[in-house]
Amino acid sequence: MSILVVGSIALDTVETPFGKASDSPGGSALFFSAAASFFAPVKVVGVVGEDFDFSVINFLTKKRVDLSGIRVEHGQTFRWGGRYQQDMNMRDTLYTHLNVFESFQPIIPSHYQTCKFVFLANIDPVLQLQVLRKMVSPTLIVLDTMNFWIAGKRLELMEVIRQVDVIILNDEEIKELTGQYNIQKAAHILLQWGPRHLVIKKGEHGAMLISENDYFTAPAYPVIEVIDPTGAGDSFAGGFVGYLATCSRLTNLNFRKAVAYGNTVASFAVESFSFKRLQEIDRRQIELRYQQFRKFTHF
Amino acid sequence: MSILVVGSIALDTVETPFGKASDSPGGSALFFSAAASFFAPVKVVGVVGEDFDFSVINFLTKKRVDLSGIRVEHGQTFRWGGRYQQDMNMRDTLYTHLNVFESFQPIIPSHYQTCKFVFLANIDPVLQLQVLRKMVSPTLIVLDTMNFWIAGKRLELMEVIRQVDVIILNDEEIKELTGQYNIQKAAHILLQWGPRHLVIKKGEHGAMLISENDYFTAPAYPVIEVIDPTGAGDSFAGGFVGYLATCSRLTNLNFRKAVAYGNTVASFAVESFSFKRLQEIDRRQIELRYQQFRKFTHF
Repeated sequence: MSILVVGSIALDTVETPFGKASDSPGGSALFFSAAASFFAPVKVVGVVGEDFDFSVINFLTKKRVDLSGIRVEHGQTFRWGGRYQQDMNMRDTLYTHLNVFESFQPIIPSHYQTCKFVFLANIDPVLQLQVLRKMVSPTLIVLDTMNFWIAGKRLELMEVIRQVDVIILNDEEIKELTGQYNIQKAAHILLQWGPRHLVIKKGEHGAMLISENDYFTAPAYPVIEVIDPTGAGDSFAGGFVGYLATCSRLTNLNFRKAVAYGNTVASFAVESFSFKRLQEIDRRQIELRYQQFRKFTHF
Repeated sequence: MSILVVGSIALDTVETPFGKASDSPGGSALFFSAAASFFAPVKVVGVVGEDFDFSVINFLTKKRVDLSGIRVEHGQTFRWGGRYQQDMNMRDTLYTHLNVFESFQPIIPSHYQTCKFVFLANIDPVLQLQVLRKMVSPTLIVLDTMNFWIAGKRLELMEVIRQVDVIILNDEEIKELTGQYNIQKAAHILLQWGPRHLVIKKGEHGAMLISENDYFTAPAYPVIEVIDPTGAGDSFAGGFVGYLATCSRLTNLNFRKAVAYGNTVASFAVESFSFKRLQEIDRRQIELRYQQFRKFTHF
């Protein structure tokens, strides 16, 4: 099944204790696509400026990613700069230049509107609602968001939440969204708002999947050398949605496996700057690490 | 198989967002004993002051815990006071009055010296070495320690580490002990110093077991309402060593299961102040939650 993703496309300048990469392709839509395309065809909606060099994302086209929904607008591509500390859970944003992304209006080509799987990456909930109105009859809608929208566009975000099947948040976001410090209680509140599944990302500590009638908790795959955590969350989402798009039925067990695939793909993504590692590997390497992850966690 | 534990016995005054308990029994030796005694007989070595009311730990005697190795010294019992913040991963120590514990000299009764399992709770490594010299032919020695000894008695601690089979640390401690920020690399260094197994406790994020030829990572059991985290680490150790003491062979799989039992017992311990919850439950309730934990983590 095809997956639609709507999100940001950026040129990231990232410094970590292991080095620096300047103006490398990034953004939620691209990280998601790179990860999900190991599993299923992906169609991307996003915007770049005239300065964007499409040759750097050529590998996505080869991997069944449809880039025809990326519009080139007059101006510069969204740029983000960040620096990770020695403890790579901490990062400082050095700059955020929205550029053409500031006035992003997602236009969903007609051949995109029948995608069965939809990933709404972290963008303005008003735009997320516009996207949903265009979709014909999606099987599964998965939402990501961030504290900026939780604080600034709460009503609109709540309307999106009512319409989605799965919401992916980190532990801070779910606390802020529900006003409940206890994660188990916060999850209970959120599942009453509409989504049938909630995924809580905990970075190096793994992820939890809380569903109406299931509960799953998984550690992260133990990465020996984390080089750059940028994009880990969107790579997780890509592995997660990508795997579900291959399933004939969306059972609880398949949702659990999807979390494990999400963890697995994210574990590769952080082993290099930008998409470098995701470009090097293939589906077979993901499968090997997934099986290893299974072995690491079962008893 | 019987387990020997040598550690602190304290009267804790703890404030959490859920209430306050004053001068409740605590300390590493008692938390460990309360947890391990669900599985195997435990023999305790420790010291209390003349003010200690043994009736508050009567329940331990009923649970096959031998308290005859606890000496009553002239003076007051070790007292600790702490306050947990809203985020219960953060706590402030309000006071530490070592009292009789300051001059603790562990004396191992002769009928204790043949215990096959030994847990060296967090005390001065010089004393831990004295204990080891008294033991006849232990099957498994498990060590806990803390940053205070890592910084202050490094040479003595290294000598203990050389002599033990398993070391239990938290993520901060292993970084400080090895000087290596990356946990996977730190584990590799530590396993070259002597222990065959390393357990890294990560609190609400679970635990990792890194052995010479095995790797296991587990999330924590999802506790709905954490009332007081004091003693969670020693309860984990109690469940861990307690389960191993029931095994006819110390296989990698049994070590994995021991981590899961440690997680399970700790999840009960934090549901009340002091040992209250551990007094209420029985082995059957531990088994039910262990099976639930298994169900929560497998895919």
